[in-house]
Order: sequence, then C-alpha cells, then structure tokens
Amino acid sequence: MNELIETGKNAKQASYFLSTIPESGKNKVLLTVARGLRTNSESIIQQNNADLENAKKNGLSGAFVDRLMLNKERIESMSAGLEEIIKLEDPVGEVLEMKKRPNGLMIGKKRVPLGVIGIIYESRPNVTIDVFGLCLKAGNAVILKGGSEAILSNKALVHIIRLGLKENGFPEDTVQLIEDTSRESTKALMKLNEYVDVLIPRGGAGLIRSVVENSTIPVIETGVGNCHVYVDRYADIEKAIAITINAKTQRPGVCNAAETLLVHETIANEFIPLAGEQLRLKRVEIRGDAYVQKLLPYAIAAKEEDWYTEYLDLILAVKVVGSDSEAIEHIRKYGSGHSESIVTENYSIANNFLDEVNSAAVYVNASTRFTDGYEFGLGAEIGISTQKLHARGPMGLKELTTIKYIIYGNGQIRT
Amino acid sequence: MNELIETGKNAKQASYFLSTIPESGKNKVLLTVARGLRTNSESIIQQNNADLENAKKNGLSGAFVDRLMLNKERIESMSAGLEEIIKLEDPVGEVLEMKKRPNGLMIGKKRVPLGVIGIIYESRPNVTIDVFGLCLKAGNAVILKGGSEAILSNKALVHIIRLGLKENGFPEDTVQLIEDTSRESTKALMKLNEYVDVLIPRGGAGLIRSVVENSTIPVIETGVGNCHVYVDRYADIEKAIAITINAKTQRPGVCNAAETLLVHETIANEFIPLAGEQLRLKRVEIRGDAYVQKLLPYAIAAKEEDWYTEYLDLILAVKVVGSDSEAIEHIRKYGSGHSESIVTENYSIANNFLDEVNSAAVYVNASTRFTDGYEFGLGAEIGISTQKLHARGPMGLKELTTIKYIIYGNGQIRT
Repeated sequence: MNELIETGKNAKQASYFLSTIPESGKNKVLLTVARGLRTNSESIIQQNNADLENAKKNGLSGAFVDRLMLNKERIESMSAGLEEIIKLEDPVGEVLEMKKRPNGLMIGKKRVPLGVIGIIYESRPNVTIDVFGLCLKAGNAVILKGGSEAILSNKALVHIIRLGLKENGFPEDTVQLIEDTSRESTKALMKLNEYVDVLIPRGGAGLIRSVVENSTIPVIETGVGNCHVYVDRYADIEKAIAITINAKTQRPGVCNAAETLLVHETIANEFIPLAGEQLRLKRVEIRGDAYVQKLLPYAIAAKEEDWYTEYLDLILAVKVVGSDSEAIEHIRKYGSGHSESIVTENYSIANNFLDEVNSAAVYVNASTRFTDGYEFGLGAEIGISTQKLHARGPMGLKELTTIKYIIYGNGQIRT
Repeated sequence: MNELIETGKNAKQASYFLSTIPESGKNKVLLTVARGLRTNSESIIQQNNADLENAKKNGLSGAFVDRLMLNKERIESMSAGLEEIIKLEDPVGEVLEMKKRPNGLMIGKKRVPLGVIGIIYESRPNVTIDVFGLCLKAGNAVILKGGSEAILSNKALVHIIRLGLKENGFPEDTVQLIEDTSRESTKALMKLNEYVDVLIPRGGAGLIRSVVENSTIPVIETGVGNCHVYVDRYADIEKAIAITINAKTQRPGVCNAAETLLVHETIANEFIPLAGEQLRLKRVEIRGDAYVQKLLPYAIAAKEEDWYTEYLDLILAVKVVGSDSEAIEHIRKYGSGHSESIVTENYSIANNFLDEVNSAAVYVNASTRFTDGYEFGLGAEIGISTQKLHARGPMGLKELTTIKYIIYGNGQIRT
C-alpha cells in the first residue's frame, strides 16, 4: 500500500510535466516507442512465451491463450497503432467559449489533460501499448494494472515505453506498471483518490462490475452491449435482412454486435422466414418467442434471461412485438444502453425511435456494428462508454481531457 | 430497501416522459410551482416552524437554525428563483457536430437529459426548490434525500411541487422525496445504480466525502474550496490589496472565498504591512509563516494543517514564497482544485500561472469570488464541481445533460 502511494505521487508529479508539453514532444515519444517495439520484438516475444507457458501450465483456455499471445505481426500492429496516434490532432490547449462578461472579465474554458489515469485490464498485452499511446497524446500520466497472466509481457512492453520517455527527456513515471498483481493491490489502487483522477476498466463484465462497485475514484464504465435491431412494419425488407445479418454475424464477439432482434407483427410473417433462412446459413442459433417458433421450426424457446443476455456468440434472441412502443419498452427494460437500430421507411416512426430510445448510439437503417471510434471519425478509441457522465459512446482523445476555466481580469472584485 | 427500488422505478418511468417534453411544458410547471409556493407560504412556514422547534429542542446551533429557517421573504426568493430558471434556454435537443461520414452515415451528438438525478443534502430547504427547478428544466427526474431536521419543511415543499406537476399533466414522480431519513436509506440510495444515473451531494465536506466513499453510482463532487491568491513580485499593489480583501472578506463563508494568501518575497516588505492593515480593519485573523509574523506582530504562527484548511471564516493563512514555482507547488500540494488567482502585471508569469495551475478556475488579476454560475453567465448553478469528470467549475443546466449519438443511415452495413 505504501508503495502504491509512491506510485500515485510519482504519477501526479509526471502529470504536471505532461500538462504543458506541446504536441511535437509527445509525438517524438510515440515514434521512439513505436520503433523500440519493432527493434525489441524478439525479447518481447521471449517474455511473452514465458507468460504463455505459465498460462498453459495453469490450464487456461485456448481463447485466453490467443488473447495473451504476441508475435511479430501483432507487435508490428501495436507500432502501427502508435504511428496512427501521432497523426491525430492533440486536443489539449484548445480554448472554448471565451467570452467577455459585463464587468470586463474574459472567461473561457481551456481543454487540459485529465491528469492521472488508472487502467485496470485483463490479459491482452496490446492494451498496454494502446492506452499508453492515447493517454500520452492527451497529456496524461498512466498507472497500469494488467492481469497477472500477462505480467512478463507487460513488464517488457513498459520497459520499452519508459526507455522511450527517458530518451526524450520525459519523466519515466509517465507510465508505471503495478507489478504486484494481487487483488489487494487492485483494491488499493481503486481507493487512491488523492492521486488518480479517473479509472477506466478494460475487460469483461465481471471486471467492470467489480471496479464500479469498489472504486471510490470516478470510473468510466465501458463495454457491455446488449444491442437491438428493431424491424418496424414499414421496414424495407432487403435493408432489414442485410442489417440484421451484419449486426449479428459480421463479428459476433464484440460489444456492438446485435443480440436481440425485435420484429413488428405486421411484417413478421414475411420478414422472419426470410431472415431466418439467412441466419441459418450463417449458423446462427435462434431463441425465439412462441410466434417466432411457429415461423421457424428450428428456433428454440427464449427464456426471460435471454432478453438480458450479451451472447457475444452466434446466437440471436428474436421477439415479435405488437407496436413501436412495445419495442421501445423492451429495449429500455432489457438493453444495456449501448447501440440500437430501427429499420423503417416511416419518417415519424424513425424520429420517434431516435427521441425515445436513450442509448449511447441510436441508429435508423444502419447496422449497430458502426459504434466504434474509427467509424465515428474519432481516429482511435480507448473504449465505448455506456454511462452518461463525462463520455458516452466511443471515447477518443477528447474524452481523455477535461476543461478548466481561465479568467483574464484587470483588477475586478465582486460587489 | 424494497420501497427504495419502487422509488427508483417510478423515477426512471418519469424520466422517459420528461425526456421528450418541450420547453414550454416544463416552464408551465415551473410557473405553477412558483405561484404555489407564494399561495401556500403560510402552511409552508407552519411546517418549517415545527422543524425549527425540534431543532431547538435538540440543541442545534444558531447558524444551523438560520439555514433551516423559512420566512415569507425566503419563500418569495425561491419563487423568484424558479421564474429565473424559466428564462434560461432549455439545453435539451441541441444536436452538435453532425457530420457525414465517407459511407454516407450522418452522425451527430444530441443533447439529452441525464435521466434520474439523486440529490443528497443537509438542512437547507431552499435546496429542494433550487434543484427541482434546474433538474426539471434539463428534463431530469429527481430523487431528493434531505436532512432529517428539515423533513417537515421538505414534505410541504415537495407536496406543492407534485401538485404543480399533476396540474400540468406531468407524472408526480418526477420529484420524489425519500421520507425515511435514516442513514440506512441514504446508503441504499447510493447503491441504486439500476435507476439513478448520477448523485450530487450538496453540503459540507463530511457529507461529500461520505457520498464519494460509499456510492457505486457516479457522483459529481462539489464544493470544498481552499482557494489561493498569489501576489507576484510584479503585482500592482492596489489591485493586489483590493483582490485580497475582496476574496477573503466579501463573503467568507462560501467555497470561492480565499483561504491562503501567497506573497512573493520581493514584494513582501511593501505589500504585507499594507494588506495586513486592511485585513485587520476587516477583523481578519492572520496565520502566517515566520516572515509574515515579523512583518505583522499580531499574526499568529501558521501550522502545517493551516495550509490545508478551508476556514469559511475571517481567518487567512499567509505565506511568503521565493519564486513563482514555489507558489504553484504550494497550490498543487495544499489546494483543493477550486479557484486560484495570481496578481501580476507580467505577461509571461501570468500565462505560466494559467498553464501550470490546474484548478477548476484560474484567474489573473481578479477575485476568486467570481467562481459562480451567475457570474460566469450560466444563469444558475446546481453546484461547483471540483472533480475533473463530466463537469468542472460552476454547473448550470448543460451540466445536467448528457449526449447520445444519433445516426441516420440508408441501409449501411459494416464490411
């Protein structure tokens, strides 16, 4: 715990340095680290191999091992990611809404870094490089708490990052890795309010819940996506099928994939058999209500819990609704507030859906798969916020900053 | 606890209604309540008298009783406050940064209400009306948890609010008061993540700390202000004296009043005796370092804890520093990140202070007392945020909203 306080102090100190560094200085560090990763890929892979062996010894699943694994190609992709971040505009320093008040005070909002960002993540070593790049470009110091299974890989990566910082005259403590991978140190990090300005958990639903429940530091919640496609009675059938298939099957393991399909009963007899056929070709398991089961004999019965579930798999819950408001109420009750899409050619119904569905991203006639920092034009993302405070939807560099008011006076006092 | 879940559900339901109501409807409710308060002032005062008697029986301090007390004048001021809110522009519905992506998707950010706001406050009944007005105008449902000492006053006020809601066809549960004033119900409210989108504590440092430590709901921290005035060696002495006196004495009991004065040693011999004289005339107690004590014989010795203290009283800690960076480091170490002001005629030093001091409001040549929603032109404020997420500095109607992405497509799928 005392050690962690030192970590916090060091990060805070580094954050003061970072807050006034111009973009060119930060870009130099990013470039040095991108090159350092390429040059040292052999030794990174060596350390990663040791992590992989331990993971296999401990009987971790193949999917787990795949997420943990680094090779030349993946390291190249991390370097390329840093070079992409170099190209993004530095959000820090912009002054917004500067105005002159009646008493002559000039008041504006200046965009500044958040300060110290804590990242708690699982065993994907690429997160180490991703979050370093984004946090640094936005002028923040970072404290990293990665999963124990990736500790040797993370140490190797952070070593290269710190060399790059030092080489460019930056404090090495701009990036610190907590090497104590115990749960106790995670809990202690979550109470480090004096030094850490925000915590961002990156990982599965369990990790995120644990951080939300235990942190006294402000948290940005990311991730869980129980996304819906609603096919309204005025839907264009072709668009509806294309969007349903894309939202479900284009990449089923990610948060913006659709998990539930809602269909207006007026169009159900026509749409569901056609969509069902396409879904079956893509090997999607259907869990439907009684109506759906009647139309699709291979559909199995959906249980109440299905409507809540983020499958992250080739499974789709399907329900027939009697009205638009039934669809909207279903989304409100069971959804996670991530992304929802209506397919309709009706102007008023589309606008009503956009008004009444309050998720981070609400679509008309498009796949939910577009909820993504790159697709939204942010250039990169550190996660997709499903909370309402500070950031909502894909979070880019701007979301890693805050503002402060700057006020130019000439002797004003309050009367 | 079960009762509280019902409260949460009712608020969520009301928030769906509120999210699509145009400004004119919300203004009608505000006007009805403003009139209702005036018409029913007698009965409100009667209930408030019962609260006051209980408070006196329980031996609560004169200052406490004063904060609790309502009279005709104070009720009129609550009504007038609601009428001011009617004049403010409704922030909901504005669409920001709408742009067309290369694939033809139109993507924009639409300003929407936060949803359900929980307010935990102490025994100032005017908070009940203030927060109702601001939250309603921004389209939010509210759950109020006021101090036990004000429960009868709050019941009377919420009764009038709910009559006004009903009369205008709004759900009464737009505003709910938790009548169980136990600590247990406060703790339960702080875990109501499923229904409450944000908690705002309004009150002293102890209340705020308790909410930050116990809430699993996102919190907006408001309030604590250990504000600094720094008189640089290039200060205009007259401005420096006027700003020091104003920041300390114009209203010492509020968060934007100055608590510590830092003085550059080059100007100390000239400035401190002059300022000291004026401060003594205003009956300000000085707690100074050795240098200050030498110049002001009546100054008492400052202890380490003085530099951390928000006195909210006619007491000022005074320290002489050897350089601008010593002043900035002092503010970083001891400050609460609220408001700080430098007095200087030097261009580069002023800019450096604006860059390096990272508080919610950083001033050049003006009193810290201006950190306030009205003074900043927001029209009204629900508090002054000293945290970095979501809102920083004075929070007006905009800070009671969030955004959602709205996306207009014509069949786009991701490839």
